[in-house]
Amino acid sequence: MMRTGPPPHAAADRAEGRTARKRRAILAAGTTLFLSHGYRGTSMDEIAAAARVSKQTVYKQFADKERLFAEIVTSTVDEVARPVHDEVLKLRSSGDLEADLRRLARKLLRMVMQPRILQLRRLIIGEAARFPQLGRTFYEEGPGRTIAALATVFERLADDGVLRPGDPRVAAAHFNWLVMSVPLNRAMLLGDDTPPATAELNRHADAGVRAFLAAYARP
Amino acid sequence: MMRTGPPPHAAADRAEGRTARKRRAILAAGTTLFLSHGYRGTSMDEIAAAARVSKQTVYKQFADKERLFAEIVTSTVDEVARPVHDEVLKLRSSGDLEADLRRLARKLLRMVMQPRILQLRRLIIGEAARFPQLGRTFYEEGPGRTIAALATVFERLADDGVLRPGDPRVAAAHFNWLVMSVPLNRAMLLGDDTPPATAELNRHADAGVRAFLAAYARP
Repeated sequence: MMRTGPPPHAAADRAEGRTARKRRAILAAGTTLFLSHGYRGTSMDEIAAAARVSKQTVYKQFADKERLFAEIVTSTVDEVARPVHDEVLKLRSSGDLEADLRRLARKLLRMVMQPRILQLRRLIIGEAARFPQLGRTFYEEGPGRTIAALATVFERLADDGVLRPGDPRVAAAHFNWLVMSVPLNRAMLLGDDTPPATAELNRHADAGVRAFLAAYARP
Repeated sequence: MMRTGPPPHAAADRAEGRTARKRRAILAAGTTLFLSHGYRGTSMDEIAAAARVSKQTVYKQFADKERLFAEIVTSTVDEVARPVHDEVLKLRSSGDLEADLRRLARKLLRMVMQPRILQLRRLIIGEAARFPQLGRTFYEEGPGRTIAALATVFERLADDGVLRPGDPRVAAAHFNWLVMSVPLNRAMLLGDDTPPATAELNRHADAGVRAFLAAYARP
């Protein structure tokens, strides 16, 4: 017998495809709405409407608003944390440590200063007292992960005699905040998500690297 | 004729005293409510009830919720910014710059890590996109003022040959964030307002000062 129709599991596949598409639509709509109207300013009804699915579908996929928000935080942080982490671990001294660290610092700062990440960070801080678990996720997956990767790299550089010996986690945290603090705190408090000009960000990154090396490079 | 009653302006004085007392009660109630329930989670009705005044009195004194919030931000930031500023400008090198900077750094960090200030900072960041003017006030009167005072002091120390020459504002920002960033970012994201143990704060302050001097002290 010749089979002309789809194989018997195709209907299930199509249903799964629809479910995955709906899930993605809900996550995208939720991200946009939470980031622009805040956690309390966004309802599951609005998310359902923006994603063009029924409210029941939203609840079936994500149980409740808090669970949906948690999913969005984790995936948005991961979008930046993963490439940052990879970038840090790729660092190898080419013989010109200042140039290498500068390149790294400039990249990290550009990634962290993306409007979506600034908005999410602001939202998480604003809700941290009510949702400490989400703040912890952001902290551990975001700055915590970057600093841990930097510590691994700096420990190797100290073993190679390029950096002074000492606690690599302290050196890593100092590097991170020397590079990021000035523009990040400005953006957090001023509520401005227009990324500063690249030249300005590079100036902050380079000044941070210069101070870091003056403090931590082996003379 | 003997006057036994109060002088004729006493009634006006009493009214003025009552007005000032009501104003203070509204500010105190507003501070408590905004810091614990956020800007949107607090209504003028609740503030009036907590201050034991009529809603009309609240509106007469502060025009609207935004104006009341602005007044609370300015006065709360000033409570910390003023002593921090004075403390920084008092810095004179006693011949042991590391000990002097350590003392200063420990004090600044303790002041910034007070629960009320952490809560206000979190609230301001959470609302910065909606109220950029309040974020600007916090930024300029808070970290901006501290960094400007540090720059004045560091410029003098560079003139005296104690610090390396260079842009004193960059040195000041690096000092500020080397000391504050680790505990402040943790507190912001984790939503925990219990001040860390003094010994832990001192460790962060001392590590920041050590890195700062390694980078900026004249060899």
